[in-house]
Amino acid sequence: MNDIERLLAIEEIKQLKARYFRSMDTKEFQTLHTVFAPDATFDFREALRDPVLGTPEGVTEHAPVTGRDNIVNYIAGALATAQSAHHGHTPEIEFTSDTTAKGIHPMEDTVLNGSFFFRGYGHYRETYVKLEDGWRIKTSQLTRLLVRVESR
Amino acid sequence: MNDIERLLAIEEIKQLKARYFRSMDTKEFQTLHTVFAPDATFDFREALRDPVLGTPEGVTEHAPVTGRDNIVNYIAGALATAQSAHHGHTPEIEFTSDTTAKGIHPMEDTVLNGSFFFRGYGHYRETYVKLEDGWRIKTSQLTRLLVRVESR
Amino acid sequence: MNDIERLLAIEEIKQLKARYFRSMDTKEFQTLHTVFAPDATFDFREALRDPVLGTPEGVTEHAPVTGRDNIVNYIAGALATAQSAHHGHTPEIEFTSDTTAKGIHPMEDTVLNGSFFFRGYGHYRETYVKLEDGWRIKTSQLTRLLVRVESR
Repeated sequence: MNDIERLLAIEEIKQLKARYFRSMDTKEFQTLHTVFAPDATFDFREALRDPVLGTPEGVTEHAPVTGRDNIVNYIAGALATAQSAHHGHTPEIEFTSDTTAKGIHPMEDTVLNGSFFFRGYGHYRETYVKLEDGWRIKTSQLTRLLVRVESR
Repeated sequence: MNDIERLLAIEEIKQLKARYFRSMDTKEFQTLHTVFAPDATFDFREALRDPVLGTPEGVTEHAPVTGRDNIVNYIAGALATAQSAHHGHTPEIEFTSDTTAKGIHPMEDTVLNGSFFFRGYGHYRETYVKLEDGWRIKTSQLTRLLVRVESR
Repeated sequence: MNDIERLLAIEEIKQLKARYFRSMDTKEFQTLHTVFAPDATFDFREALRDPVLGTPEGVTEHAPVTGRDNIVNYIAGALATAQSAHHGHTPEIEFTSDTTAKGIHPMEDTVLNGSFFFRGYGHYRETYVKLEDGWRIKTSQLTRLLVRVESR
């Protein structure tokens, strides 16, 4: 890749992640489907785990999910009754070849669901792949810095 | 536009929106004036409306505001006695011609005003126009995902 | 600088600041060391000062810190027992020469430390310098819009 191609690819990956956040929060799950590679994997095991306090009692950790359809179904289920806002902040993106990249997206998620108001802070650690129709998320893992739950 | 021109325009629109957020929060309203087209419209009707709970009782919804001067006066009035922090996250920007664009900016606003501590989450859905002195906000509409008010 | 060089430098400065935020929160202080110029200065006097309420009683304001090693030691000490998430939002970056720049990064920091849950909102006002191994933070000053402390 030359400099311009690299800058265009960085911008495309940023907007890919923006589309991920937006379509999840507005529950546009057909759009969410377009951000993943068909064989993507999604590791959300730490989603509810505070690095110091650990996983809250009574909460079952989620196993990693494989395959675009399963990932979208998983997210749709997790947010079905929730109001959510997921925000991504300035990412670090690095190319490992002309068609593969890795990135770290700092994130904050705010979820109002039933009786709890949840705020989480962490990083998405991801890889991306360039397919025929553009850059897609290939693997995504969430790690946590801090989790805070208040009653509604 | 060629690739470089498009990348430059995207960066300019991002910094335009950054200037919008900053000048609102630091109450530099002359700077805020420079981010809008003269005939801009600003639709803030959903600003205080939670998508599930609706608009709080006793709150009058704001009508859309037209014209750069009116918009700046409106914002200046709304924030006169407040401390605020408005944050924009990775946007999606798309060009509709060489001199027009549309974009979605995820946002979070935190406002401390009198006796309440307000946090809102949503999207700015906007159009932009390239004028002689650069890109400007032409239309701006705020939609909400989640609103939370605590007593101070 | 031509247009491409400027776009590349902007992206590099954004990722520099992303590395600053990430390495602070994950306590990777050797990485944090790489974001500063050797003679950098760091002015964090307003870190705990609310613009309206002032500095909380009993809190000693920090003097500005000079020199990369001292800055990293200072940050490492301040966060030693904390869980933190520092987020940067769309910045404004402007070049003052081919090897110097200035920028404003809106920020939010969330710190859980002992008995308090701290959230701060403000701006990093910075200058950058291009050294042999890339762009580095030369001066950094934090100003606050709003500070909020809750008991844990």
